[in-house]
Amino acid sequence: MEVTMIYMPIVLALLGLIYMLIKKSWVMKQAAGDGKMKEIADHIYEGALAFLNAEYKLLAVFVFIVALLLALVSIIVPTTHWLIIVAFIFGAVFSAFAGNIGMKIATKTNVRTTQAARTSLPKALKISFGGGTVMGLGVAGLAVLGLTAFFIFFFWFFMDSTWTNNLDMTVVLETLAGFSLGAESIALFARVGGGIYTKAADVGADLVGKVEAGIPEDDPRNPATIADNVGDNVGDVAGMGADLFGSYVATVLAAMVLGNYIIKDMGGAINDAFGGIGPILLPMAIAGVGIIISILGTMLVKIKSNDAKEAQVMRALNIGNWTSIILVAISCFLLVNWMLPAKMQMHFFGEGLVEISAMRVFYATLVGLLVGAVISSVTEYYTGLGKNPILKIVQQSSTGAGTNIIAGLATGMISTFPSVLLFAGAIWSSYEFAGFYGVALAASAMMATTAMQLAIDAFGPIADNAGGIAEMSEQDPIVRERTDILDAVGNTTAATGKGFAIASAALTSLALFAAYVTFTGIDGINIFKAPVLAMLFVGGMIPVVFSALAMNAVGKAAMEMVHEVRRQFRDIPGIMEGTGTPEYDKCVAISTKASLKEMMLPGLLTIGFPLIIAFAPLLFGMNRLLIAEMLGGYMAGVTVSGVLWAIFQNNAGGAWDNAKKSFEAGVEINGEMTFKGSDAHKAAVTGDTVGDPFKDTSGPSMNILIKLTCLIGLVIAPILGTHSTETALASTNNTIEVTESIFIETEEEEEEEGESIENLAKATVTITKIENGKKVSIKKRFEGTLEDVTQKSKAYVQDQKEEH
Amino acid sequence: MEVTMIYMPIVLALLGLIYMLIKKSWVMKQAAGDGKMKEIADHIYEGALAFLNAEYKLLAVFVFIVALLLALVSIIVPTTHWLIIVAFIFGAVFSAFAGNIGMKIATKTNVRTTQAARTSLPKALKISFGGGTVMGLGVAGLAVLGLTAFFIFFFWFFMDSTWTNNLDMTVVLETLAGFSLGAESIALFARVGGGIYTKAADVGADLVGKVEAGIPEDDPRNPATIADNVGDNVGDVAGMGADLFGSYVATVLAAMVLGNYIIKDMGGAINDAFGGIGPILLPMAIAGVGIIISILGTMLVKIKSNDAKEAQVMRALNIGNWTSIILVAISCFLLVNWMLPAKMQMHFFGEGLVEISAMRVFYATLVGLLVGAVISSVTEYYTGLGKNPILKIVQQSSTGAGTNIIAGLATGMISTFPSVLLFAGAIWSSYEFAGFYGVALAASAMMATTAMQLAIDAFGPIADNAGGIAEMSEQDPIVRERTDILDAVGNTTAATGKGFAIASAALTSLALFAAYVTFTGIDGINIFKAPVLAMLFVGGMIPVVFSALAMNAVGKAAMEMVHEVRRQFRDIPGIMEGTGTPEYDKCVAISTKASLKEMMLPGLLTIGFPLIIAFAPLLFGMNRLLIAEMLGGYMAGVTVSGVLWAIFQNNAGGAWDNAKKSFEAGVEINGEMTFKGSDAHKAAVTGDTVGDPFKDTSGPSMNILIKLTCLIGLVIAPILGTHSTETALASTNNTIEVTESIFIETEEEEEEEGESIENLAKATVTITKIENGKKVSIKKRFEGTLEDVTQKSKAYVQDQKEEH
Repeated sequence: MEVTMIYMPIVLALLGLIYMLIKKSWVMKQAAGDGKMKEIADHIYEGALAFLNAEYKLLAVFVFIVALLLALVSIIVPTTHWLIIVAFIFGAVFSAFAGNIGMKIATKTNVRTTQAARTSLPKALKISFGGGTVMGLGVAGLAVLGLTAFFIFFFWFFMDSTWTNNLDMTVVLETLAGFSLGAESIALFARVGGGIYTKAADVGADLVGKVEAGIPEDDPRNPATIADNVGDNVGDVAGMGADLFGSYVATVLAAMVLGNYIIKDMGGAINDAFGGIGPILLPMAIAGVGIIISILGTMLVKIKSNDAKEAQVMRALNIGNWTSIILVAISCFLLVNWMLPAKMQMHFFGEGLVEISAMRVFYATLVGLLVGAVISSVTEYYTGLGKNPILKIVQQSSTGAGTNIIAGLATGMISTFPSVLLFAGAIWSSYEFAGFYGVALAASAMMATTAMQLAIDAFGPIADNAGGIAEMSEQDPIVRERTDILDAVGNTTAATGKGFAIASAALTSLALFAAYVTFTGIDGINIFKAPVLAMLFVGGMIPVVFSALAMNAVGKAAMEMVHEVRRQFRDIPGIMEGTGTPEYDKCVAISTKASLKEMMLPGLLTIGFPLIIAFAPLLFGMNRLLIAEMLGGYMAGVTVSGVLWAIFQNNAGGAWDNAKKSFEAGVEINGEMTFKGSDAHKAAVTGDTVGDPFKDTSGPSMNILIKLTCLIGLVIAPILGTHSTETALASTNNTIEVTESIFIETEEEEEEEGESIENLAKATVTITKIENGKKVSIKKRFEGTLEDVTQKSKAYVQDQKEEH
Repeated sequence: MEVTMIYMPIVLALLGLIYMLIKKSWVMKQAAGDGKMKEIADHIYEGALAFLNAEYKLLAVFVFIVALLLALVSIIVPTTHWLIIVAFIFGAVFSAFAGNIGMKIATKTNVRTTQAARTSLPKALKISFGGGTVMGLGVAGLAVLGLTAFFIFFFWFFMDSTWTNNLDMTVVLETLAGFSLGAESIALFARVGGGIYTKAADVGADLVGKVEAGIPEDDPRNPATIADNVGDNVGDVAGMGADLFGSYVATVLAAMVLGNYIIKDMGGAINDAFGGIGPILLPMAIAGVGIIISILGTMLVKIKSNDAKEAQVMRALNIGNWTSIILVAISCFLLVNWMLPAKMQMHFFGEGLVEISAMRVFYATLVGLLVGAVISSVTEYYTGLGKNPILKIVQQSSTGAGTNIIAGLATGMISTFPSVLLFAGAIWSSYEFAGFYGVALAASAMMATTAMQLAIDAFGPIADNAGGIAEMSEQDPIVRERTDILDAVGNTTAATGKGFAIASAALTSLALFAAYVTFTGIDGINIFKAPVLAMLFVGGMIPVVFSALAMNAVGKAAMEMVHEVRRQFRDIPGIMEGTGTPEYDKCVAISTKASLKEMMLPGLLTIGFPLIIAFAPLLFGMNRLLIAEMLGGYMAGVTVSGVLWAIFQNNAGGAWDNAKKSFEAGVEINGEMTFKGSDAHKAAVTGDTVGDPFKDTSGPSMNILIKLTCLIGLVIAPILGTHSTETALASTNNTIEVTESIFIETEEEEEEEGESIENLAKATVTITKIENGKKVSIKKRFEGTLEDVTQKSKAYVQDQKEEH
């Protein structure tokens, strides 16, 4: 039975997708409202489709170019198989398809939520959260389905579905990395392009509509209002979905790569009930089980009372979320103990091979689950309404926009303190438990609830949209009140969701980073080498420049929108009186075009820099291993700096947003109640303007930047690593190559008690054979007196040499 | 003659100090104006003294505590000598004394500049720049004097003024590190405390004076106006002076440490005309010669015409600056070729010992000079009036404060691109030329013109003060016009000076970082070890949190000032009519107290974190070498992130400042000329409010943070390194310990042409003896067939073992 476990994740993924279809058809069957409501909803739906179609066109070109590049690589590098191209294309298509499902359901669910809110809050929650569930299961289901199906295929293609050796498995996983690269590329478009889109539309609609024309938000007379509502879906639904899709796939992949290295550390083969690949299957199994757990979790999200308030809705979401987390912990315990050897050997730097029990891997998964939960609380503390940091920003608004901005910036900056300590603690502890495999599994466990997280995330923008539709179609105030309750909860979950996304991106990048190092075969990344240190600096700079480019892009795209809205107000007769119809589609088209155009430069930066760092020195004949270390230094720089800037920007943006919102209910400043329209409120609005691109464009883009950087590194790794070059050499010459190294260390220590352990020596002999393109490393260790080990190692080397 | 070279830097430093005294007495002899002018100037002078006295009291406490800590360390760690305490105290006293000289001359020169400006612009420049020169030479002279005097003393004390071995020299330099630590501690107070002081006074004066009471800047009725003017001196003169004093000393020290390691790499002793310590003396020699060159440079700064404009003044400064840079390049060429062996051996990672010619060290110094010059241009581009980035910010001001802020932030962020590429290029190339010794000498060469740089820097605030005095004492408009010309140039030099300070801090930190690694004896810092990676994250976070704390500190201190100014306006009768005298001293006292109080937390963060990272794991019995690597990772994180945040904050702040200033002359926005008082100008003022703490408090503080972090690491290094622990073990047991390691590597490669080089093996045998607290490492290399080298190394080890 155990051998068929390889198919288990696929089955679970399919189950998830079936449940998604059922849920989808249920949502679609709900009443979609009447006349004006329907009309507006259709506009939003069509706007979303317009964006998707434009994005797909650009995507097709992009995918084609990258596929060509990959083809080039696979021709040059013997170990890179052309199947990586297929995997890449499918990764892109799967992620795009998941985004498509999400966008479509979100833009269909919004109006149904409005309709339900006319009569019942519980029903409105059920529908909006149902839409979120469809999105979540679509992403998680397709991610697991695609990744596992390709793994099974490559495992069959390259290894005949039987364990041979680590090197063959490395080829399988290297090829599989294409799928992950494809997925993350889509995330670049969805997150960065989407982030620019949503803010360009938002700022454009506000600047001309609210400020210049003096009409309220979501007013149907504003030509940019549809684009604004589409933007919520493009940025928060499709962007977040693609982001987590990418994290999900990359995390599992990285854990599989590191699982392969455990088998290597255990002597190149293990004997277990799972065909000898238990450590490689485990992350997939966790991901698969996580889908089913997420379904259970979503079922628990419901409220009963029509008079429920934010707290009850939040409680319902929390019950669902925490239940899934606890269930994942339990299943990790079961899966880890079932699928892993009870005792494993892992190589630790400076300590050599260390024996690790399976339970320690379980502890590492607990670390991951904990990080996911804690980071959400940290994010909520720094950005939540009524919390101390927000109250301080509100106070600082009384002395003007300047002090409001400083307070918001400082809040974002300070919030890096607990967050980074948390991440640092997570890296360290999960590593102590089970090496980098532990780090990767911590990430996998955290990501297991992706479907649930996405359901919670996606429900926010749906509720936001529902409120917009209620406003535009002039419903009873009670309808808007009900959607506002959902929207308020959605704002909180949006902030915590961003925390989760950063944590997932950070852990994913670290797992990829570890996979990269093992792929290249370098023995670590030594930043005391100046070129490596230089690249650490360069890497650290990239997220800063990327953020600036993204912010500038929003500014430019928003300006185009402003001009168009002004033009329509001027040229379309009767538009302000409600008799002329605004040309919504033109605004949608401008947002679409501008966002995709403006994301080129930051995208190029992301993809171009690692390629330059890898290939420029290669042209000058630099040592490949040094280049690999340099690229590793760059990846570390991007990750460290990217995580910092992601936290800083997201939390500063979230804090400004809620500081502004605090004025809606009124706040006490210097003993006086202060409301909307006051000078302090105006200062807070300025802060929010700055925060918008922070929290919706540049901040979330950091996730993609760090993951994509590490993924590109992973895909380039075979070109830089010893593995491929030696193999290439060998396969062209078709000869046998044997390299050996003997490392003998002796220590004589006079211990305090006078008991002298003399002449304790350890020798490590590494024999590396490369035969017909296959590389096998054998390590042998001897301990004893110096005499002994020297003789033994010499004899062993001699033996091995004679063998060939 | 060459042997006496060790005294050369002292002689040159004394010459510099004598010239300083001559210049000082010349400045003091100039007319100091009459009545009201003198009165105001006296207020500023007394305010400055009040700050200095308060600072000294706190400093005394701080120095006492740190001295106690160092005493503890010197008791615990046998290799740390108690003389480090003496060096530390002197470092602090010398730096404080240099700051004292600078503050006093600056607050005496300002009124003399005003007086001179009544008749002549050339004379006003001569006097204000004369004051700057006194400051520059005071700093440089005392830095070189103190460092070299202590070196000579320790060299005599520990080594009897004769080369014995690297280990003894290491003790000399470890003890000398105390001097550098003392100097940098003062910089913490001067830069961070001063930065808080200057902005608290500035914001406080502006908020109540300009905004609430509606009186102009520098109006004598404003109680905070004296504090504001004192602040310019505290922040820009004393802060910058202490910053560069610290960099100067630390750079030379680090270069000396690395020089010692060159001698080690060359076999433990060299035979040169400088008593075998040429590579150690060289950085001191460059520093000493730099003082004389700076004097020459300052002599060239003069203008002739009374109708000169900014351009001519700038040209005069540039001539002086560039002449010094070129002269330093020439003397580096001469000194390097004279003092270094023509061929040296340096250890490069992965390449082993590499032969380096002296000329390559010279090339490295050129890299340093280039970086100093280029970073100034980069800074000027991003912050200069009339430059593209500023024009863009001006344009963005038309749509409100929000867009102005975004544009300013983006400018600061983008400016990291060329700056970091420049630094990365500098690290890499100077390393390629001459290893980390090259990096340290690049920094030394750049810092050689410190006196000149400081003269240019300090003249700005003096001119600014002179303008303030002209305003307050109601001089003819022509006087203010003349001081404004000097002030405008001063603003530019302030920005470029900040660039220079960052570059110096960055290179200094890297040099210290390299010195740290060699001190601890670890073989690099491998960020693929999870604890090290975790510390890289933590280190990266510290500058962000530090900046936030510094910004919040400004806010709190400014609020105290606001309350005091409001109280005086309310309580002192006739203050607004000019009949009542404001209590200037109370405002000065508040700024002083608040700034010193508020710098505690960021200071604690800076000093506390490296100590925790080093000692907490030590308590848990963690491997010392791993801790050393972790601390190294932390240092790298702080440096990379600190440099980024320094550039970002300084340039964003500078850009906002000049965007605001652009409105004074009028700017064209959307085809219309826009001036002060417009809405766009108001938006620009908001940007400037945010930029003030960026560019004057948190930004410049980064320099101190990164240098102090690396210095603390360097001082802790002996505790963590192998060197001291093994020595400690040996000295308590008084036994001989011998450790040896043999590393044999063999390669067999079938080359393409079919020529097979078989059995080429290399063996490295390292014998480490520890005898009575002295550690000597001997490396022996063998090459040949595997058979050969194995036998040879074994025989060699046996030989060595029998010897003991």
